[in-house]
Amino acid sequence: MPVNLRIPGPTPCPDDVLQAMSRQMINHRGPEFAEMIARITSGLQSLFETKNDVLTLTSAGTGAIEAAVVNTLSPGDRMLCVSIGVFGDRFADIAQTYGVSVEKLSFEQGTAADPDAVAQALKKDSGFKAVSVTHNETSTGVTNDLGAIAQAIRSVRPDILILVDAISSLGSVPLPIDAWDLDVVFTGSQKGWMVPPGMAMVSISKRGWDAVAGAKIPRYYFDFAKAKKYLETGQTPWTPAVSVYFAMDVALKKLQAEGLANIHARHARIGQLTRDGVKALGLKLLADERVASNTVTAVRVPDGVEWSALGKMMRTEYNTVLAGGQGALTGKIFRIGHLGLVSEADIQACLDALRQALPRVGFSPSGVGATAG
Amino acid sequence: MPVNLRIPGPTPCPDDVLQAMSRQMINHRGPEFAEMIARITSGLQSLFETKNDVLTLTSAGTGAIEAAVVNTLSPGDRMLCVSIGVFGDRFADIAQTYGVSVEKLSFEQGTAADPDAVAQALKKDSGFKAVSVTHNETSTGVTNDLGAIAQAIRSVRPDILILVDAISSLGSVPLPIDAWDLDVVFTGSQKGWMVPPGMAMVSISKRGWDAVAGAKIPRYYFDFAKAKKYLETGQTPWTPAVSVYFAMDVALKKLQAEGLANIHARHARIGQLTRDGVKALGLKLLADERVASNTVTAVRVPDGVEWSALGKMMRTEYNTVLAGGQGALTGKIFRIGHLGLVSEADIQACLDALRQALPRVGFSPSGVGATAG
Repeated sequence: MPVNLRIPGPTPCPDDVLQAMSRQMINHRGPEFAEMIARITSGLQSLFETKNDVLTLTSAGTGAIEAAVVNTLSPGDRMLCVSIGVFGDRFADIAQTYGVSVEKLSFEQGTAADPDAVAQALKKDSGFKAVSVTHNETSTGVTNDLGAIAQAIRSVRPDILILVDAISSLGSVPLPIDAWDLDVVFTGSQKGWMVPPGMAMVSISKRGWDAVAGAKIPRYYFDFAKAKKYLETGQTPWTPAVSVYFAMDVALKKLQAEGLANIHARHARIGQLTRDGVKALGLKLLADERVASNTVTAVRVPDGVEWSALGKMMRTEYNTVLAGGQGALTGKIFRIGHLGLVSEADIQACLDALRQALPRVGFSPSGVGATAG
Repeated sequence: MPVNLRIPGPTPCPDDVLQAMSRQMINHRGPEFAEMIARITSGLQSLFETKNDVLTLTSAGTGAIEAAVVNTLSPGDRMLCVSIGVFGDRFADIAQTYGVSVEKLSFEQGTAADPDAVAQALKKDSGFKAVSVTHNETSTGVTNDLGAIAQAIRSVRPDILILVDAISSLGSVPLPIDAWDLDVVFTGSQKGWMVPPGMAMVSISKRGWDAVAGAKIPRYYFDFAKAKKYLETGQTPWTPAVSVYFAMDVALKKLQAEGLANIHARHARIGQLTRDGVKALGLKLLADERVASNTVTAVRVPDGVEWSALGKMMRTEYNTVLAGGQGALTGKIFRIGHLGLVSEADIQACLDALRQALPRVGFSPSGVGATAG
């Protein structure tokens, strides 16, 4: 029985994607790679709903956060950082590391950012060069209403840079980059894309490129301009994670065959199934349900239960891998990933396992003893 | 018939290494990953001949050059950059990008750095914080006598930082890190390690860590201190290229089974075979033979031959992929990679293909018409 890997990335990969990972190496400066990176770029543009340039970087998603900062900003620039959790805070940390003056607009854990509050912050202070927003906060299981936030931002500052961490949302939940007029938006291969980690993908608007031209933070490995110049010749500036490109090439075909609307509907359906199932067990969600994420669900660890004991039991006795909490939420929540390759059956198996494990670590779930389902 | 991929990375991977690439994902913050990264770290330490900390980064080799610079230096620090080609120059470019004041000590293309000249440069000017050296210059097919260079450096400046780009040498040719007292030494998975690209591996000495503690260039993604802290818990700070770790885990076992002395002897033997074979065809080496590399051979494109025509013919008609020249050497040389998974038969097949292709693009190799071999 395969492991039920229910963490918010790396996500399980389909068999044919995994098979592609075992292809023999090719010349990353030869014609086969050039055709492949062109196909991948165009597939990503389609699923990103953008005509912008899309670059691929060999790095984790955090590399893309860094890339967004160092390519578009200068030391001393001011950025409004909209944060609803660990990854929003990370965006701020990275910007501060590189000399950006960050004002953080934080919202309570489990809630989403208020678009009006973002607009107010920009009205009160016209000195911001950029706003950063985390679309889907993986640490709390909350999806910001990015469309409304972007509209609120543009209503005050039509030309401000909008930098979006969409690592755990893009490709899984609606995020029409061009319709929402977003400047730098990035994700990672190991999330909804059903591909192993190693590739970050970044969309850059015309406004984004104008910022790149003036940005003075030093950069080399993550230099967007170099990546664009090489992409025009079918290459990457530095040796790419070739196998991850093979896998992405296969995964994009599968995602395009399923179709963006179907992918989004599947994630919405499974997100709801997860939340309903968790509540039916008598467990509590961390997220305000109106803004709960369709890619990851954060569940409060019940009083009297040790997360470490529950997580270990789920893994060793029920073949189900859950994610713990991060930062201040360590030990207080656990998370169920449901993005990418995920079916109703995967979630049902996870819920069934929880129903059996919870009483053994000190919590009596609702409906135990009753017929499952 | 499989392609004879004779470029200096990505190198061909053994079947079991490729199979490991297709393993299903695991939790990168779980116990299985922790055991694997501990095993990989210890395997690398053994093959690096070092007791230093060894960190793994998810990036190309160029990411490791950047990491070496940003983790150990401060803006305004002075670095002596020993350059014998494109990759030596890249080290200088990266350091300059981050505000380091670089003095380049360049040697003619195809030659190695003169240890005495390095010592003289350090005697003349005592203000350098660091020296960078490329062990094996992939662009020209030259291996520096790093042991002699390190000794020359230490004789003048016992405590200067020595930063070594060993991307295309470490694991393939002798490089005893501790015996040579080198501070930051790095390589990439796609070279002699017989693993797909996506991982860079870095050794950091006590002197290196002291430099990290005082270094003021901003860093985040490539932060050595964060990587070390996470490694102590069996993790990486950011999501690692998990599949490449699976593959490295398998490859290191194979390399350890072959044994470092045997690996080095095999590369030496095959390097010599390549050079002898190239010369027997009447072609000329770029490198001074006394310092020619045992991992890559640079061959001058004969007068009247177009590299693009030769390279394409070798690829499309002889199933053999060669690398072109880089930078100023584009069109003037081609390169034969012979590191990692390479046998005498691979090189013989490559030489045989050249013997057949060359007359068709305007060059009559020696011995054509005579019995091959």
